[in-house]
Amino acid sequence: MKNKSIKIAMIGLGTVGSGVWKILTQQRQLLEQRIGVPIEIKWVAVKSPRKKRPLAIPKTCMVSQINSIFLDPEIQIVVELMGGVTEAKEHVLQALKHQKHVVTANKALIAECGSELFHAAREAKRDLCFEAAVGGGIPVLRALREGLAGNHLNSIYAIINGTSNFILTEMFQQQMDFSVALKKAQSLGFAEADPSFDIQGIDAAQKLAILIAMAYGVEIPAQNIHTEGIESVSLLDLQYAQRFGYQVKLLAIAKSQQGKIQARVHPTMIPENSMLAAVQAENNAVLFDGDFVGETLLYGKGAGSEPTASAVVGDIIEIARNIKAGVSEAVAPLGVNVESLRPARIEPMDMLKSEYYLRFQVTDRPGVLAKITQILSQLQISISSVYQHGHEAGGKVSVVVLTHLAKEKNLQKAIIKINQQSFVYAPTTLIRIED
Amino acid sequence: MKNKSIKIAMIGLGTVGSGVWKILTQQRQLLEQRIGVPIEIKWVAVKSPRKKRPLAIPKTCMVSQINSIFLDPEIQIVVELMGGVTEAKEHVLQALKHQKHVVTANKALIAECGSELFHAAREAKRDLCFEAAVGGGIPVLRALREGLAGNHLNSIYAIINGTSNFILTEMFQQQMDFSVALKKAQSLGFAEADPSFDIQGIDAAQKLAILIAMAYGVEIPAQNIHTEGIESVSLLDLQYAQRFGYQVKLLAIAKSQQGKIQARVHPTMIPENSMLAAVQAENNAVLFDGDFVGETLLYGKGAGSEPTASAVVGDIIEIARNIKAGVSEAVAPLGVNVESLRPARIEPMDMLKSEYYLRFQVTDRPGVLAKITQILSQLQISISSVYQHGHEAGGKVSVVVLTHLAKEKNLQKAIIKINQQSFVYAPTTLIRIED
Repeated sequence: MKNKSIKIAMIGLGTVGSGVWKILTQQRQLLEQRIGVPIEIKWVAVKSPRKKRPLAIPKTCMVSQINSIFLDPEIQIVVELMGGVTEAKEHVLQALKHQKHVVTANKALIAECGSELFHAAREAKRDLCFEAAVGGGIPVLRALREGLAGNHLNSIYAIINGTSNFILTEMFQQQMDFSVALKKAQSLGFAEADPSFDIQGIDAAQKLAILIAMAYGVEIPAQNIHTEGIESVSLLDLQYAQRFGYQVKLLAIAKSQQGKIQARVHPTMIPENSMLAAVQAENNAVLFDGDFVGETLLYGKGAGSEPTASAVVGDIIEIARNIKAGVSEAVAPLGVNVESLRPARIEPMDMLKSEYYLRFQVTDRPGVLAKITQILSQLQISISSVYQHGHEAGGKVSVVVLTHLAKEKNLQKAIIKINQQSFVYAPTTLIRIED
Repeated sequence: MKNKSIKIAMIGLGTVGSGVWKILTQQRQLLEQRIGVPIEIKWVAVKSPRKKRPLAIPKTCMVSQINSIFLDPEIQIVVELMGGVTEAKEHVLQALKHQKHVVTANKALIAECGSELFHAAREAKRDLCFEAAVGGGIPVLRALREGLAGNHLNSIYAIINGTSNFILTEMFQQQMDFSVALKKAQSLGFAEADPSFDIQGIDAAQKLAILIAMAYGVEIPAQNIHTEGIESVSLLDLQYAQRFGYQVKLLAIAKSQQGKIQARVHPTMIPENSMLAAVQAENNAVLFDGDFVGETLLYGKGAGSEPTASAVVGDIIEIARNIKAGVSEAVAPLGVNVESLRPARIEPMDMLKSEYYLRFQVTDRPGVLAKITQILSQLQISISSVYQHGHEAGGKVSVVVLTHLAKEKNLQKAIIKINQQSFVYAPTTLIRIED
C-alpha cells in the first residue's frame, strides 16, 4: 500500500464542497505527511459539470453521472456534500453497497435516516463519518465517541445554531429588536432568506438528536425533541436577563437520569459569567458533563465553508489512516455496535422541573400582582424575584417574575390561566433558567 | 477475538491510578458496549502490595515485580501511572519491547524522552498514547491529531497549568496578594508543598512542548521554550489590567510563521471578553487557530484524579478498539510518521514583537515621566496609554505604560536602562499583551 494514493469522489461542490476541495489541494503535502499516503480527488460529481466555477478544477474530474463513481473500483471514499435527504440517502446507500467508505456533512440525513445508514455501513463493513454534521469545524462528535468515551454523560448543553446565536448576540450588544437583527444576519449571510429552520430551533433539534444518539447509544427522532425557537425573545427579555445576571442563549439540552433522557431546545437564561455565556456571534459550543471528566467544553465555528470542510477532511484523514493500516470499522459510527441501538426513552416535557423567567404584559391597575401571585401560588409555583418598573404607553407594564424550581406542567397551566385575565394584553413570555 | 476480554496491567496506583481503577470497574458495562469486548485489569504493579488502600482491589491483582507483567503474554496494554522520568521510561521501553501497547499520563516523560519512546513504539509496531499528559481530562491531543488534522495551526494559546490559573483567579476575585492565594491553593490541594514547578511555568512549558511536537511534527526540548512564571505578578497588575479591559493569565503560546516556531510561557494580558479570559480557577483551556477551521477552543478540568483518569481510559478504549479491529498503529503517536520528525526551528525570544504592559515603580518627582518616555522613544517603543494615579507611602508611585507593537529586544534594553535611573525604587514589571 505504501505511497499509493487514496482516491476519493465528492458529490456536490457547493459551499462545503468547495472548502473540501481547497483543503485537499492546498494542504496536499501536510495531509500526506499526516496520513502517510497522498489523498487524490478523482471525481467530483455535480449536476452541471460545465458550469463556470471559481475553483480551478480540471474538467476531467467533473462528472454528472453519479453512478459512475460508485462503479469505479479505485474509489475508496465517497464524500457526500450535496445536502437534502432523499437523494443524498440513495447515494450514501449506493456508496456503502459498493464498498466505499462514506463521509457526509449532512445533519438532516443523519438525524432522519441515521439508523438505516448505520446498519448499511455495518453490513458493508465500511466507515460512515459525519463529524461536520454537528458543530461545524469543532471536533465535537469525535470527542464524544473517543476522548470522553469512558464517561456516562450527565448532561449536554449546546449552542449549535449559529444563526440564532448571532441574532441574540446582536440584539443584546447593539440593543436591537429581533427583526432588525434577523435582517442583519441575512445580509451578512448568517441567515437564509427563509430563516425558519434556524430560528424555530429545528436545526438545533436535529443536531441534538445526533449528539444524543452518540452519547447514549440510542435512536431518537428529532421531532420527539421539545423545540422552541428564538422568535418570541424580545430585546426587553435580554435586558431583564442582564439585570438578573443572566444571558439568553438558544440551548439544546440533554440530560440523562435513571435511563430516561430529557431532550429539549429552547431559549435559556444562563449565568452571565459561564463559559457558554461567553459564546458570541455565530460561534458554537458544546458543554459535556461526564461523570468522571466533569465539565468539558468545545467551542469554535459551527458553520461556514472552511470550518465545515475542516471537519469533513478530519473524517477523510481518519478513514484514510484506517485504510492505510488495513482496517475498516475500527470505530462504529455512533461509537457502539449498531445492533445494540434501542429507541430513546424520552422524559415527557410535562415532567420537567426548572426555574423560570416569566414576563407578564399587563395593564397597570391595583390587584394585578396580587392575582398573578395568587394563581402561581395555587399551582405550587414559588417566586424568587419580582420586578416591575415604570410604565409603557396606555398604562401598560411588564411584570417580571423569576421562580424557584417548579413543574413545567404547573407552569403551563398557570400561564394559560393568567393569559385569560382581563388585565393581560399580550401573551406571557416564558424563558427557562439553567444555573 | 469476539467477547474475549482485553487484559491490561497498571503500573502505579496513586491519584490517577486510583481514578483509572474506578472508571474501569464502575463503567465496566458501558465500556464493553463501547469497545465490543470487556476490559480486564489483570495486574496492578505497586511498590508495596500489602499497603492498606481505600479501593477494594483483590490482593491477587497486586504485584511488586514489574517485570512479571511484561512477561505475561496475556497483557496487551500497559498503563504507566507511576510518574517520574528515569524509572517510568525504563518500564515504557520494556513494555514496548514485549509488544505491549502503552498508555501514560506522564507529561515529563513525554516532554523529555518523547522522541526516543516514539521510535521504540514504531519499532515494536505498538501504540503509545498520552492524552492525559496535556490538559488532563480535555481531549486536546486527540483533537489536534485527528479532528483538526486538515489544518496548519497558525497559533496555539493554552491555559495548561491549573495551579497558576487558580492562583490568578483567586487573586483577582478575592483581591488577594500572590502569597495568600498560593497558601489557599496549597490548602485546597491545587498546589504542591513546593509549588515552583507550577508557578515558575515549567509544567506549562513541558505541556506546550508536547502540543508543539504534535501540532508541527517536530522535536522540541521544553528547556528551549522561553518560560516565565506568575511569581512576579502582583494584585496591582491585575487591577490595572482590569482598568484597561484585560485579564492576566499564564499562557503557553506557540505561533508558526515561515517554518519558524515561536514558543513561550509567560503571564499575558488578554481581552476580558475573550473565551480564554472566562477560564476560571483550576480549569484549563487550549485555543487552536487553524488556517481553515479558525479558532477552536477546548476547555475542562486539567488535573485531578477522575478527569485525568478519564483521558487515560479514552486512550485505553482507542487501543482496545484497534486491537479488536485487528490493527495496531493506526495513528502514530504524534500523528505523523516518527521518521519525519525534525528538530523545531525556534524563533529567538529577542525577535518577538508584542504589545507590552509596563509598571514602573518610581519616586514621584518632576521629570520622571519625561525621562521614562524619552528612553522608550529612543528605542522605538511607542506608547498607547499612560496611567499614573495617587501616591503610595514615601512619595512612591506606579507609572503604568501600555505600548504599541514593539521589539522584545528593545523592550528589555529599555527596562534595564530605566531600572538604572535613580528615581526607580523597585524593578519594573513587564506583562505581554495578546489581543
